[in-house]
Amino acid sequence: MDDRVKAIAERISEKVVGYRRDFHRYAEVGWTEFRTASLVARRLLELGYDVEAGRGVIREADRMGVPSHDVLEACWRRAREQGGDVEFLDLMRGGFTGVVASCGDAQGKTVGMRFDMDALEVTEADGAEHPPAREGFASVNHGVMHACGHDVHTAIGLGVAEILREVGDSLRGRVKLIFQPAEEGVRGARSMVGAGVLDDVDFLLGLHVYSRWKTGQIAWGMNGGFATSKFDAELRGSPAHAGSAPHEGNNALLAAATAVLNLHAIPRHRAGASRINVGRLTAGTGRNVVSPTAHLVVETRGATTTVNDFMYEQAVRVLESAAAMHGCTLEIREMGAAQSADSDPELAERVSAVGMRLGGFTPRDSAPTGGSEDFTYMMTRVQSRGGLATHMGVGARTGGAGHHTSDFDIDEEVISLAMALLASTTLDLLDSS
Amino acid sequence: MDDRVKAIAERISEKVVGYRRDFHRYAEVGWTEFRTASLVARRLLELGYDVEAGRGVIREADRMGVPSHDVLEACWRRAREQGGDVEFLDLMRGGFTGVVASCGDAQGKTVGMRFDMDALEVTEADGAEHPPAREGFASVNHGVMHACGHDVHTAIGLGVAEILREVGDSLRGRVKLIFQPAEEGVRGARSMVGAGVLDDVDFLLGLHVYSRWKTGQIAWGMNGGFATSKFDAELRGSPAHAGSAPHEGNNALLAAATAVLNLHAIPRHRAGASRINVGRLTAGTGRNVVSPTAHLVVETRGATTTVNDFMYEQAVRVLESAAAMHGCTLEIREMGAAQSADSDPELAERVSAVGMRLGGFTPRDSAPTGGSEDFTYMMTRVQSRGGLATHMGVGARTGGAGHHTSDFDIDEEVISLAMALLASTTLDLLDSS
Amino acid sequence: MDDRVKAIAERISEKVVGYRRDFHRYAEVGWTEFRTASLVARRLLELGYDVEAGRGVIREADRMGVPSHDVLEACWRRAREQGGDVEFLDLMRGGFTGVVASCGDAQGKTVGMRFDMDALEVTEADGAEHPPAREGFASVNHGVMHACGHDVHTAIGLGVAEILREVGDSLRGRVKLIFQPAEEGVRGARSMVGAGVLDDVDFLLGLHVYSRWKTGQIAWGMNGGFATSKFDAELRGSPAHAGSAPHEGNNALLAAATAVLNLHAIPRHRAGASRINVGRLTAGTGRNVVSPTAHLVVETRGATTTVNDFMYEQAVRVLESAAAMHGCTLEIREMGAAQSADSDPELAERVSAVGMRLGGFTPRDSAPTGGSEDFTYMMTRVQSRGGLATHMGVGARTGGAGHHTSDFDIDEEVISLAMALLASTTLDLLDSS
Amino acid sequence: MDDRVKAIAERISEKVVGYRRDFHRYAEVGWTEFRTASLVARRLLELGYDVEAGRGVIREADRMGVPSHDVLEACWRRAREQGGDVEFLDLMRGGFTGVVASCGDAQGKTVGMRFDMDALEVTEADGAEHPPAREGFASVNHGVMHACGHDVHTAIGLGVAEILREVGDSLRGRVKLIFQPAEEGVRGARSMVGAGVLDDVDFLLGLHVYSRWKTGQIAWGMNGGFATSKFDAELRGSPAHAGSAPHEGNNALLAAATAVLNLHAIPRHRAGASRINVGRLTAGTGRNVVSPTAHLVVETRGATTTVNDFMYEQAVRVLESAAAMHGCTLEIREMGAAQSADSDPELAERVSAVGMRLGGFTPRDSAPTGGSEDFTYMMTRVQSRGGLATHMGVGARTGGAGHHTSDFDIDEEVISLAMALLASTTLDLLDSS
Repeated sequence: MDDRVKAIAERISEKVVGYRRDFHRYAEVGWTEFRTASLVARRLLELGYDVEAGRGVIREADRMGVPSHDVLEACWRRAREQGGDVEFLDLMRGGFTGVVASCGDAQGKTVGMRFDMDALEVTEADGAEHPPAREGFASVNHGVMHACGHDVHTAIGLGVAEILREVGDSLRGRVKLIFQPAEEGVRGARSMVGAGVLDDVDFLLGLHVYSRWKTGQIAWGMNGGFATSKFDAELRGSPAHAGSAPHEGNNALLAAATAVLNLHAIPRHRAGASRINVGRLTAGTGRNVVSPTAHLVVETRGATTTVNDFMYEQAVRVLESAAAMHGCTLEIREMGAAQSADSDPELAERVSAVGMRLGGFTPRDSAPTGGSEDFTYMMTRVQSRGGLATHMGVGARTGGAGHHTSDFDIDEEVISLAMALLASTTLDLLDSS
Repeated sequence: MDDRVKAIAERISEKVVGYRRDFHRYAEVGWTEFRTASLVARRLLELGYDVEAGRGVIREADRMGVPSHDVLEACWRRAREQGGDVEFLDLMRGGFTGVVASCGDAQGKTVGMRFDMDALEVTEADGAEHPPAREGFASVNHGVMHACGHDVHTAIGLGVAEILREVGDSLRGRVKLIFQPAEEGVRGARSMVGAGVLDDVDFLLGLHVYSRWKTGQIAWGMNGGFATSKFDAELRGSPAHAGSAPHEGNNALLAAATAVLNLHAIPRHRAGASRINVGRLTAGTGRNVVSPTAHLVVETRGATTTVNDFMYEQAVRVLESAAAMHGCTLEIREMGAAQSADSDPELAERVSAVGMRLGGFTPRDSAPTGGSEDFTYMMTRVQSRGGLATHMGVGARTGGAGHHTSDFDIDEEVISLAMALLASTTLDLLDSS
Repeated sequence: MDDRVKAIAERISEKVVGYRRDFHRYAEVGWTEFRTASLVARRLLELGYDVEAGRGVIREADRMGVPSHDVLEACWRRAREQGGDVEFLDLMRGGFTGVVASCGDAQGKTVGMRFDMDALEVTEADGAEHPPAREGFASVNHGVMHACGHDVHTAIGLGVAEILREVGDSLRGRVKLIFQPAEEGVRGARSMVGAGVLDDVDFLLGLHVYSRWKTGQIAWGMNGGFATSKFDAELRGSPAHAGSAPHEGNNALLAAATAVLNLHAIPRHRAGASRINVGRLTAGTGRNVVSPTAHLVVETRGATTTVNDFMYEQAVRVLESAAAMHGCTLEIREMGAAQSADSDPELAERVSAVGMRLGGFTPRDSAPTGGSEDFTYMMTRVQSRGGLATHMGVGARTGGAGHHTSDFDIDEEVISLAMALLASTTLDLLDSS
Repeated sequence: MDDRVKAIAERISEKVVGYRRDFHRYAEVGWTEFRTASLVARRLLELGYDVEAGRGVIREADRMGVPSHDVLEACWRRAREQGGDVEFLDLMRGGFTGVVASCGDAQGKTVGMRFDMDALEVTEADGAEHPPAREGFASVNHGVMHACGHDVHTAIGLGVAEILREVGDSLRGRVKLIFQPAEEGVRGARSMVGAGVLDDVDFLLGLHVYSRWKTGQIAWGMNGGFATSKFDAELRGSPAHAGSAPHEGNNALLAAATAVLNLHAIPRHRAGASRINVGRLTAGTGRNVVSPTAHLVVETRGATTTVNDFMYEQAVRVLESAAAMHGCTLEIREMGAAQSADSDPELAERVSAVGMRLGGFTPRDSAPTGGSEDFTYMMTRVQSRGGLATHMGVGARTGGAGHHTSDFDIDEEVISLAMALLASTTLDLLDSS
């Protein structure tokens, strides 16, 4: 069966590379992946999957860091102009850009796979030395670029979908393909978990491409990402003339300064590494006016969800008290979050066995990247229900450009490799379970 | 009548100087003036006054900065040993060391006079160049000294009492002599106001001697003292091992540090000068223990009661919020307070006219001393009921030593001058009102 | 002579009102008064004055709060297009928009007068109820408006110049007319003092119109403005990834927060009221980046220059230490300054006598406005050399709009009154000195 | 040879237990171990060792946390009265209470062993349920107690010395017995390293008894202690009257509060866990006096010496800048320090092999205690010169009392076990090297 999967993967790889380049060309940032997600949904429908999109797979209350209404609308109109699927666009309006497709035998086990779809606010390089520019698929949406490889992930997802349909008679269970919005800023996964999308998944697979690992290098199960909370805090006091009535103000800047010092002074935690950062502070109006407002852009991290929860709760207490101290109101807006989660070694070994049979992979250690991934929300949900989850990293090097830079690029050879790996692993897991 | 008053004053002055030296020798700090006050009460009773002492003239809830039970008891026993009046001592036990004596015609107006009785925690000089030591009346209570002249005030009060009894047939109204505890630290006046002592006073006279003004120099009506609040704040968190469990502590020292900075950052007030000081901070236990407690010794001041109230309310808000920020409890103990109050120019002029008639006085401006006086509580109460009040300063220089120093001394000539002034003024006020 | 002056003033007043409306229509903010100043210089030259403009009367090192090169150039080009005097424009290029004109007998005393010329960054009202809009002289320079009456001051200066030339044979000394840039933000006066413009002035007169005093109400000598320092502080540290390398950053935001708290905690000063305000703080870049920069917009004030100097010196020490604490560099840019200065009562009385003779004025007290004026730099210089100075306030009410608002307006009747007052006072001072 | 060693150990164990009880009875805190150290030196001399004591083995500049001169002298006199060795006492006067004894063949390798001798400021329990009290060897020095087992360590050292002399003809190298003062507070080891004591050691053995591990449980090589710096910081400003001259003070309390917040806000380090604690802050004098002094008691920790060095350097920078900010001087006194150091697994295995041969030991994991040990200074020095070092933990349980408590007790059975282990290991190491 491995051979048949590999053959299909090779056969369709040019088409799938085409998908990737199309997504790359029309890059869309988190919660605005209207064109991408609607075309994904349309294609999955064509392949015969049961497809659900929009509010059914995105719980509104769990979304984080959603752009303003105006931005959402402008992006939605752009998606319509750029060829998005009209029918699905209607379902997704307002930032409900998730898609879930399933097929197979509901009596058997369920293998879930997550593919993230969003791009970044990066302006793509336009020189001839940048392959997407040279080949004509650089982003036409100025200031937005697939600089982290999610276009590749999305295309792989469609490829896996096609392979599994073709070998579908061999499926001894169920497949669930999850296309997630807004992974950047760790904003989207929680809303799909909140919608119950993961509640029937027994094996969960996730995969990220890396531009600085040699093509085919693979970490079968990554660990050690920080749990994290991203949030904005808005302090509102009241202005006063600093010369003639200083005592009449409620100084939001003093509240903010007090908070900044005390946020950074939150104690270390015995259970593991912690982090806190106020990345941005904007306060005040005129030189001679007691500052009536302050806006803080904050994140906490923890080696474990427990540590991060501690940091977040302390941070909220600090901010609330600083506001009270200076007669200010406080509003906190969640802008993103991830949990800490480890891959199940048992599942990682299963994938590894398949991969080594297929060939083309070189195992490598998965040193923690120091970053965060909201796929951890999905892993945690599956694991908490007794399922197994693993998050893989796969190398796809073209040159030296790092993730999130304007000349980031990915070796498209990885697409065929990854499609085969995920499809074969799915068959293997359902066969033996 | 002035002449008669002067004659009596001169005649009794040696005796009154004797009172002063006796009080000086057995100096007692605020709320422990058991011996002094009980002897004052006894003497006033002997003179034929209606005398009230203890809880009837001291409202317990309004006392501030009262020593511990143990200290009160020890001082009370010492007073008994040093010849205090046994009967009055019983009334005063527990720190109720106020005395009020009245006589005259309740149908007429009432002239009130305030005399404060407490000494300071200063160790008196013992060299021959220090008159009290040379003359043998230096304090025998080690570490306690009349270094601000309240012994002189108390003696003057007894002298005035005697003069007014002698000329009592001429009194066209009522006299009320108020002997107050705990003026140092501005702790006592409020409790006598709270007991209603001032509620029937029409004219209120107060007087303070100054060791650095020439004897006989006088300010007829002083203004400009700061309103002030003195208080202690106790923050209680919880300890934790700073190495193995830093996150388990509630750090009272961090709360205190946050409070200290924000207390000093309370905004200036348009309506006049303000002050804030954290004079002492004691926090923590061991080097490797998260600090579980912090004790702050604080005062606010304001050019007016309004400004001081603003400072105090802000200070409380800062402390409460700093406590909440670090999971600590907060206890605030009032330790003293004064209001801002101005002497009534009309009354000051009346006194001035009497004084210039009597002779021996040289008027001077009353530059604000930068300090505070709790006589202001009494002034404010009288003024708020339509009465008039004035606070006089009288020079009594011996050498150069300042108030509150261990070689402070007072020219006893001032006693005769002041007795005559207060007695004549009383007669004058009652005559013409 | 008063009558002759009054007659001339009345005769030329329509022309001078025309000047005022022209300046109003082409409003220019501080250091960009290229058109206004060049036309003032041209007119004074036509009247026969010795005129100096540009770098000779503006010391470059003493300028504060000068706009960027690009802004200066754009405004300079606009001035050329809007009819500025080409010759003087060349002298003023780069922001040297001061003009000094003198005439008379250098052997005699010198009377100096200051007129400020700059407008504000306010967008002028355009409704029919706003007289300048209705009459067609509202500002054509969008976002810039004479909302404080400096257009009126400048016109008055030209009127006085014309009157004094006409009666010039009677001048028993010298007249010096000083047209100052950038009074708003107290940025310009110091540079004219620095250039030595005030060094030969014996009597200095300044005048400000007030839209909320009845026309003709006048304060002959105003006092009590705050000395002030306006400055920006730029902290520069170094960024680092807040998750993977927090220890590698130099956190400018922590430095700024530490500074903000300690700036507001600078102690009160015995010698008088003080103020401090951080009106704006902008720090940081991304949420997950240790903040590499922070920009603070600050001002200090003091009841006296001594108090303000104390506040400023303490503020600099706080900022320097906060920068050092977090490994940041600090750059402080002076953006404006004023001193405290009192009008000489002797001179105020002289002006008052003239004014009462002329008629049309009603004296009023000059309650401190709570603001600051950089004319104080000039007053201080003249007074320090033995001269006399006074700063007058004159009412010119049309309705209720306050200074610095978009519907601010001035009763043009004040122009004739003020021209006559300044011209007659000049003659009077030179006659009798 | 193991058997012979065991036999000697058993034979002399009663005597060595006697030593231990003697040391326990005359407990002495760090740098005042005059009696203990002088008797140790005397005994080693009697056994025939080359003995060096005092300044030759303690580098003065490297001592930390030394008591005041007066305390040192008082303890020294007490030691003389309590039977200390007069000759050695002279060498140790002033707090030079280290002893180094060596014997053997200087041509061979050198095995070093460290024994710490100091007690704690703990008042020993005096009830019959506390064995030392019941048996009559509880501390007679009130407030000082061997509550951490260093008396046992010292006795073991003397026992090992005796055994090795007895089997001395078998020694194929050199033995160096190091008796260290002031391990509590991690104050003493650095000064012995500084004196060069470790510079010729090839194998270094250290051992600590634990009252909560079963007797005989042993960790052959402990790791994971924090590197740490203990220091006091003294800020000195200048006082001023908070009411009349607040601007004249240099507020050490404000400096301290600023430091406290910024110390706790020192960033986390990527390379591992860090800690900071201000365990105590004492500042100020009177309520109405600007605080002229502040005393901070601080410690930093780091998972590695690098991390701790980072924390310490940042802490110094924070304190220096906070002092400068408020015009204060700063004095930092080092009070203790430890490094991070890991036992060499190779040496731990060698000891383990010997121990398992001797019998009586049960291996256990050595979970980090969360504390710090200044033996790490000695380990680091030996390792840096190519030698091997290990630090062992041995159980010696009597009941449940923890270290540093007043009813702490040690099972004396451990003495015989430990003597045999160290002596046999020494012979083994020298034999095979």
